[in-house]
Amino acid sequence: MEKFSASEHPHLRYNPLRDDWVVVSPHRAKRPWQGQVEKKAVEDVPRHDPKNPLCPGVTRPSGQVNPDYKNTFIFDNDFPALLPGGPDPPKSDDPLFQAAPAHGNCKVICFHPWSDLTLPLMEVGDIKHVIDTWANEMINLGKINQWVQIFENRGAVMGCSNPHPHCQVWASSFLPNEPSVKHRTQKEFKEKYGKPMLVDYLEKELAKKDERVLLESSHWVWLVPYWATWPFETMLLPRRHVLRLQDLTDDERNDLAQMMKNLLIIYDNLFEISFPYSMGWHGAPTGKYLEEDCSHWQLHALFYPPLLRSATVKKFMVGYEMLASSQRDMTAEQAADRLKALPRVHYKHKSD
Amino acid sequence: MEKFSASEHPHLRYNPLRDDWVVVSPHRAKRPWQGQVEKKAVEDVPRHDPKNPLCPGVTRPSGQVNPDYKNTFIFDNDFPALLPGGPDPPKSDDPLFQAAPAHGNCKVICFHPWSDLTLPLMEVGDIKHVIDTWANEMINLGKINQWVQIFENRGAVMGCSNPHPHCQVWASSFLPNEPSVKHRTQKEFKEKYGKPMLVDYLEKELAKKDERVLLESSHWVWLVPYWATWPFETMLLPRRHVLRLQDLTDDERNDLAQMMKNLLIIYDNLFEISFPYSMGWHGAPTGKYLEEDCSHWQLHALFYPPLLRSATVKKFMVGYEMLASSQRDMTAEQAADRLKALPRVHYKHKSD
Ligand SMILES: O=P(O)(O)O[C@H]1O[C@H](CO)[C@@H](O)[C@H](O)[C@H]1O
Ligand SMILES: O=P(O)(O)O[C@H]1O[C@H](CO)[C@@H](O)[C@H](O)[C@H]1O
Repeated sequence: MEKFSASEHPHLRYNPLRDDWVVVSPHRAKRPWQGQVEKKAVEDVPRHDPKNPLCPGVTRPSGQVNPDYKNTFIFDNDFPALLPGGPDPPKSDDPLFQAAPAHGNCKVICFHPWSDLTLPLMEVGDIKHVIDTWANEMINLGKINQWVQIFENRGAVMGCSNPHPHCQVWASSFLPNEPSVKHRTQKEFKEKYGKPMLVDYLEKELAKKDERVLLESSHWVWLVPYWATWPFETMLLPRRHVLRLQDLTDDERNDLAQMMKNLLIIYDNLFEISFPYSMGWHGAPTGKYLEEDCSHWQLHALFYPPLLRSATVKKFMVGYEMLASSQRDMTAEQAADRLKALPRVHYKHKSD
Repeated sequence: MEKFSASEHPHLRYNPLRDDWVVVSPHRAKRPWQGQVEKKAVEDVPRHDPKNPLCPGVTRPSGQVNPDYKNTFIFDNDFPALLPGGPDPPKSDDPLFQAAPAHGNCKVICFHPWSDLTLPLMEVGDIKHVIDTWANEMINLGKINQWVQIFENRGAVMGCSNPHPHCQVWASSFLPNEPSVKHRTQKEFKEKYGKPMLVDYLEKELAKKDERVLLESSHWVWLVPYWATWPFETMLLPRRHVLRLQDLTDDERNDLAQMMKNLLIIYDNLFEISFPYSMGWHGAPTGKYLEEDCSHWQLHALFYPPLLRSATVKKFMVGYEMLASSQRDMTAEQAADRLKALPRVHYKHKSD
């Protein structure tokens, strides 16, 4: 019988954080594509647009005027999905018609006053400023909220409706689905094996070094997880066991700023465009969980980029994926090899 | 304190099939949209295209020539995600690096020889033919596969790469994530309450009649589930307790053909375009499960359409949704009201 080769033969891989499986079909990347092609990201965004509600000095739809900010600028989302106050739904005895309270805060963080920058094109010092702002919001919003989700949707293909560099923070009175599953799986792992799952995982990945590890710095490791779902999905992990973003030392934050710049340059270089993705941070929950043992958690950032073959052809997570299981068309190792082979200088600065 | 109103105040709703929650933000539909707009679906597809590998008489990339088929035509996907044979991954003791065998069959079913038709524009008799083909494939592929997923991705925005009316069948040696969760939740419900979950659910929805029920026929009910996630997500349920598609009587299949035509006309009329969606069937698993008690299952079809506000503005399930919880911008009842108000004659046949 033929010998199994991960880069040749379909198989399942287990995602221990989500407690589910991804279908890996390595041979399928060869199929021709006649479907939808995306528009290339607009590359000629003006530095300042007096009509853009995220620019310094502009009046937002709410009537508020943005200050003439110099680095980050944070404000309440003018169209929040969650609100701090308001009445709660009535309790129901019927297991099939259950509603529950949802309160929270939605904020927008502008990364920089200029609209024509993205994180990989920003100065390391300015990225450090973004990280400090994230950490502060984790502390402030985490006081009363059980979960503070920091996330960036970059690119129109990821539903981003404004090219100005920014991210969002949605903090909630409840633990959302994803972190609630990860809370359980990491707890069970620690109880069973005596170690936080992602601390153990990082050690093992570092031992296997050349398979899925992409970049290493003194405090951080960037890798393609064994169970990656999106074509070029990656994870960023601290070397140390860290529960929450706000627990990072100043050293670790400076190093993180440089690491984020480096990794995002590699992403941009893959298809020589401003690489679209959704990214975000997962760490131990906040609010009432600040008083509980959360030592099974390990802080990590997740990058979910949609592109598959080129700047204009994405992976569609549709029919089978929505109804059955996620499916990918190349292995994590094949994606890692492609990313590792890319230049470390941003394609826009090639001639420098 | 203000009284709670589901159409005014953010809240969570519980999805008992998936055992998770959706964030409902009814006030958020008012936010302006400056992000990506989709291309309108192409409406002038030629009836026959000698270059289209799904048309009768055409030679496919595999070198095989399609027969001059008259109703449905079924063939093996030329780029299958799963293969019947091939070696299995080696067993691993490490809980963080788990791979498992994945075998199966991937088929394509053309609905009709004409490329310029879609299900809602087809004759009821031809739709009945599609349903019979589905039922036969459930039987054939279900003999050795634990799960047979029938699904249709319609529209380029849903990753469909060919306008010819068709669906896919991916059958697998394993129970994928979604059905595996539903297997558990429906089993637990039946154990606890003595009734299949969706049988109980349908009774309750019929009693509340005017809230989320959209269409009723002698054997079928079309509704917006209380826990709907996609803006215009719906579910189609038989009135009778039916485990699998192949268990439907001829009467029920004829009625289903008419019901599918009716509901898909309403979908097309919402934005007066060929309405994009992923749809598929979930029923009791097959293979070894054919010998087990699966009486907790109830057959149902799911429709997941991406559009939110217009023919060109979709709901993006991105940052927060990928990292935290699904979120919707109107309630299930608001979506139901919009769908109920639509004409029952297809917009293309308005003048008839
Ligand atoms: O097989 P197709 O139609 O080429 O592919 C489409 O449906 C598949 C199953 O949902 C997805 O994996 C693909 O991303 C999508 O483009
Ligand atoms: O708040 P924004 O940027 O307008 O909205 C974007 O991100 C949100 C959070 O992931 C999504 O719910 C929206 O669908 C998306 O368009």
